[in-house]
Order: sequence, then structure tokens, then C-alpha cells
Amino acid sequence: MVGMEKPTIQESLTRIVGEIEGTVTLPDLPALEAAVELTAKARRVFVHGAGRSGLALRMTAMRLMHAGLEVHVVGETTTPAIGEDDLLLTASGSGTTPGVVSAAETARSVGARVVGITADPESRLALLAHATLVIPAATKTDRSEQHSAQYAGSLFEQVLVLVGDALFDVLWQRSGKSADALWPRHANLE
Amino acid sequence: MVGMEKPTIQESLTRIVGEIEGTVTLPDLPALEAAVELTAKARRVFVHGAGRSGLALRMTAMRLMHAGLEVHVVGETTTPAIGEDDLLLTASGSGTTPGVVSAAETARSVGARVVGITADPESRLALLAHATLVIPAATKTDRSEQHSAQYAGSLFEQVLVLVGDALFDVLWQRSGKSADALWPRHANLE
Amino acid sequence: MVGMEKPTIQESLTRIVGEIEGTVTLPDLPALEAAVELTAKARRVFVHGAGRSGLALRMTAMRLMHAGLEVHVVGETTTPAIGEDDLLLTASGSGTTPGVVSAAETARSVGARVVGITADPESRLALLAHATLVIPAATKTDRSEQHSAQYAGSLFEQVLVLVGDALFDVLWQRSGKSADALWPRHANLE
Amino acid sequence: MVGMEKPTIQESLTRIVGEIEGTVTLPDLPALEAAVELTAKARRVFVHGAGRSGLALRMTAMRLMHAGLEVHVVGETTTPAIGEDDLLLTASGSGTTPGVVSAAETARSVGARVVGITADPESRLALLAHATLVIPAATKTDRSEQHSAQYAGSLFEQVLVLVGDALFDVLWQRSGKSADALWPRHANLE
Repeated sequence: MVGMEKPTIQESLTRIVGEIEGTVTLPDLPALEAAVELTAKARRVFVHGAGRSGLALRMTAMRLMHAGLEVHVVGETTTPAIGEDDLLLTASGSGTTPGVVSAAETARSVGARVVGITADPESRLALLAHATLVIPAATKTDRSEQHSAQYAGSLFEQVLVLVGDALFDVLWQRSGKSADALWPRHANLE
Repeated sequence: MVGMEKPTIQESLTRIVGEIEGTVTLPDLPALEAAVELTAKARRVFVHGAGRSGLALRMTAMRLMHAGLEVHVVGETTTPAIGEDDLLLTASGSGTTPGVVSAAETARSVGARVVGITADPESRLALLAHATLVIPAATKTDRSEQHSAQYAGSLFEQVLVLVGDALFDVLWQRSGKSADALWPRHANLE
Repeated sequence: MVGMEKPTIQESLTRIVGEIEGTVTLPDLPALEAAVELTAKARRVFVHGAGRSGLALRMTAMRLMHAGLEVHVVGETTTPAIGEDDLLLTASGSGTTPGVVSAAETARSVGARVVGITADPESRLALLAHATLVIPAATKTDRSEQHSAQYAGSLFEQVLVLVGDALFDVLWQRSGKSADALWPRHANLE
Repeated sequence: MVGMEKPTIQESLTRIVGEIEGTVTLPDLPALEAAVELTAKARRVFVHGAGRSGLALRMTAMRLMHAGLEVHVVGETTTPAIGEDDLLLTASGSGTTPGVVSAAETARSVGARVVGITADPESRLALLAHATLVIPAATKTDRSEQHSAQYAGSLFEQVLVLVGDALFDVLWQRSGKSADALWPRHANLE
């Protein structure tokens, strides 16, 4: 029923991992280090993103909580106001998502720092952020298949998950804490 | 097109408010005071409920955050583990919702306190809680229309919203703080 | 330890119910009927609100799903694009919440209908909506205590819960279905 | 201040991608194909997972909605009851997460199919599922660093994101639809 030329899920997976490999050879190490430093010294970390980027950042938020940071997800029930010395960690492939851009503006206006993750180094988010991480992947609205054969912003969102986990990994290793020391913070209800 | 005997929304509203009035004449003032005291002295407050009861408790959680308490909603992204001196504020009409009961058991086992809100004073939740608030409304599975003409647990859930707001109201008034003093905690992103 | 003049939770509850009673004597029955009609004939219903108003509308959304309507909450994971013949059911005390106003504008632009619930009949939301339900309560930013002794938009949000339940109640009673007929739609996972 | 031996974020990223590469060389193509088939022919798809696995599955859920499937996330507001001919797509590294296992049992009991993604092919989830995808990564509670130098279930969760996207990619390519044809389903509110 399915034609021979149609891909198997193994072929899709291998191609996706290949795309990720080609994307994470990131050139801007200074920006990455700046993001680590800003996260480490923030009073509280707020994460914010739309759609799948927002879900990817929530994966990061959960890990940063495990690492002992005070972390809030914008839009969840008990997230307070962001203020001075806080960090907004946000992402938008295009760098123009209205809610993300206005959050970055608000964060700056109250004295918080902003880490922006985007595919477009010239975007509004990139200009607003104190540290900009550029993921050289297609944006959600780029359907040219030039950067990726995947649908919409999939590659950006996948790398965003990995960048968030690398951010955590570096903070964790620099902390010198064992995995056992983090474990008691994992949610024990539900 | 609609028959004369069918209710208008005004008739529904008036009947709902009447049912609420008949329900909030609660007899167990000692339990209510105990709930206020346990909330006021908790290190952190965790709220947990299923379905519409969970949404009602999230309304309470947001207000308690505005009042300056550290509050977490079970199941949200950055909610940590509950521990000693924390409070679990939970509700279940039947008092038997499995997730709620097991959360109450876990909370007790780690030394946290439990406030349980339920329609059934003999339920498992009522037995587990350090303070039990009984709302004399129908439970979700009681479809006898004996306690309420409304669908399922609607009356319980409505009164739960009001009980949560009364809990906040008392804590707020006892704090002596003005409304202006609470305002800066309201979310300023999104 | 607590002064005699401080309220008991019973006094708070009684006062809250009194405020609600004074508020639900709503004059605009035609608007309420219009809201019922628009909901009943919508292809799909989308609910949207910020903060506690959003939580109140989610309580309504869950019930409308139980009644057999296709309902989506804006911002949840699998909510699709709104389109022609859909309904946006939204609320904002002030009628000016940016996300709510822009959602109402988008909904209109794609041919969807809008039911707006607000405390201000002259607000942007009221002007955009095809049916406007005015709840004569204080808005969130009105801290004059003129309309309510409660904090911020509490009274508006409480009445919003009840208006949503009255909307469901009318739709349910007009459907002629028994409670048992709705029950199988209740979530059976988790 | 930071020692020379501490990793840079680039080193973390490269190591993470290397771990993923080593993990996605999955042997069980028949199981993967079965998962694709079960998803394609399901009446509705329900996704369910705890913690970061749940967030990864929500990324998949959003994409499956874009592909035109009816998809619900367990625990979100308007998710109805699962029933016959529906699919539960669920994941648990250990295969023993209580909520996931009981959801799989409920799904089976009502005649729904289950796709289970786990690191343990002998686990309860693997035994319950109609199709089991084994991701040969560490489980969350395996802190031996044998399978991965990353914290807890990170590698499992990362590969889960990619497996979900491969599942979507295969369904999409087999559908023969262009990216432009999927675009109108993307959320247009907020």
C-alpha cells in the first residue's frame, strides 16, 4: 500500500540526527558562555516561548529547577512579575514572535537580563537580548527546505531542546554536585 | 423556537446563587480557622486537584502568590518536591480521587500538612487531612439532584472557588497590607 | 494573637456571596440569550482569558466539552487555528487585556463570532464582540473598593465562573439530555 | 574562577549529539512501523507522559494536530474520555511510571490501542502496549552513567522528541501534502 520510495521511520530519524549534527557546530562560543553566566547569576529565571519552542524551553526550565535555581514558566499559574536581577530565557526561530518580543521589552524595562535564542541574528529578539544564541536552522515560516527537509521550525525546536540541556549540563558539572544531590528536587506528587 | 418551560440564563444564574447561599452556611468554623492557620504558617503551599476542582484551586493558588506566599501547582513545569513544613491544599468532592488521595498520603509521609476540601466527611481524603473543610454539596458522581439541580459537581466546584477566595481574603486582611502592596506581584509578562 | 476585629473565614464567605448576589441581577437578558445562541450554533468554541479569568473560562470549557461541543482552550497544546463559523468566548474585566483584544480582532478577521464578558460596556472588547455580557463588578485595576471589598478582580472572576455554569446549564437543559448521557465524556485517563 | 577542566557548552552539545547518534540506531523497525500504522489509522490520538517525557510528547502532539489528526493531551482542559479505536501514545523511560501504566491499562480496557515508548523492553508499559518502541537509553532513575553521561533521563527524553518528530515526518511524507497545506492549522490566537 505504501510505495517503496516512501521513507521508513529509521530513515527519518537518521536524517533528523544528521541535520542536528550539521547545526550544532555553533560558532558563537562567547554568546553561549554569556548565556551560562547570565543563568548562573540570575536571581530567578523566567522562560517564555510560543508553541513547540515554549515546550522545549519548559524541558529546560524543569532541569534548571532540578539544579536548584528558582525558575518560572511565563503563563503558568503562580508565575510572579519579573524584576531586577532576574533573567528572561526566551526563544523564537524568527525572532519576531509578538509575545516573545514584548516580553523581552518588558524584561529590559524592569532591569532584568534577556537571553534570546533565535535563527535570525538580525531579528528584533536578537537586538533586544543581552546574549543571543543563534541556531542556524530554518525559521518556522521558512518553507523553502533550504536549511532542513523537516517541517517548519522542527530543526530549530529540536536543537533548542539540546541547547537547553547543554546549558543545564554545563551548570551542573561546574556545580560539582552529584546526580544524587539533585534527585530530591524531582516532583514527588502526581 | 425554544419552549416556554425552558430556563433563561437569568433563571439559571439565580438558582445557582441560591444553591451557593444554601451551601456556604458552613458549620465547621474550627476547621476553616485551622485551614487559615496551616496556610499562614506553611513554608510553601502546593495545590492539587483533578478537573474543575483543580482549576478552582489554581484560582486560589494565583491569589496566594499575590499575597506573597510561595505557591506551586502540582503538575506544572517547575513544581519541586513537597517536603517537611510544606502544605498540600487539595480538594475532591468524593474525597476518593486516586491522584488526590495518593498525593495526600505522600505529603503526610514526608512531613507536610494537608488541608482537604471535600463533600464527604467520611472519605479517605477527610481522614488523611490535618484540617478538613466539608462543603455540603453533591459529589461529582452523585446524579440524584438531591443536593443540587446542577450537573455533577458544579455546586461543589463553585463553592470551592469561593472558599479559596475567602481563605485568601482572611489572610490578606489579617496581613494589614493594602491592595496596592500586592499589585506588583501580578504577572507582567504576556 | 489575632485581633477581635479581624474577619473569620465565615464572615468573608458570607460577604462574598452577598456581593455575588448583588451582581448577578443582570439586566441584559438579550445579550445573555445571544451568547447562548452563538454558543449553541458554533462549529467549534475557543475560550481565551488571562490569569484568573482564563482559569474561570477553562472551567466553562470543560463543561461545554461534557455537553458534546468541540471546545479548545487558547494556549493549550493541540488548539488549532480559529476560523469561520467558530466562536471565541472570552473575558476581560477591563475589556482591554492586550491578548484578549487581539484575539477578538483575529477572530473577527477570519469570520468567527465573539462573545465578550467584561465589566466595562464601553471597552474595546465590548465594541468588538457580537454579544457582550456585562458583569457589573470592579475591574482588576480598580482598587477603590467601590464595587467590592474583595481584592482586585475577584468578584468579576467569581461571577464569571457562575455565568459560564449558567451558560452550560441552559444549553444542557434545552438539550433535554440526562446527566447520565453526558457522563461518558468525562476524562477517564489520569 | 571556573577551572580549565570544566566543559564548555560546545563540548556538552557535541557530546549530547554523539549520545543521540549512538542511540537512534534502533533495531526494532517492525515496532516503529507498527507505531506509524497505529497512529495513521487511529480515530483520535491521546498523548500522555510525566515530567519531561510529557513535554516531549506534547511537541509530538502539536505536530500531529498540524498533520490533521484529532489529538488530545491527557490532563489538558478539554480532553475527553478515550474510547474504542482511539490510540494512547505514551512514554516512560522506566516503563513503570504509575500514571502512565494505569492510563495504558484503562486504554486497553476500553478498546483503545497503545503505543508505548520506553527504555526497558521488559517493563510493565512494554507488556501492555500493542507496539513498543525501545529507546536504548538510561532510565530516569539509572544514575550509573553507564548509558549516558547526562543527568537522569535526559538522553531518553531527547531521543523521544526526535522519535516523535520522525513519526510525524513519515506520516507527513506519506500523506503527500505540501508544507503549505499544513500551515493553516497552526494556532492563530496568541
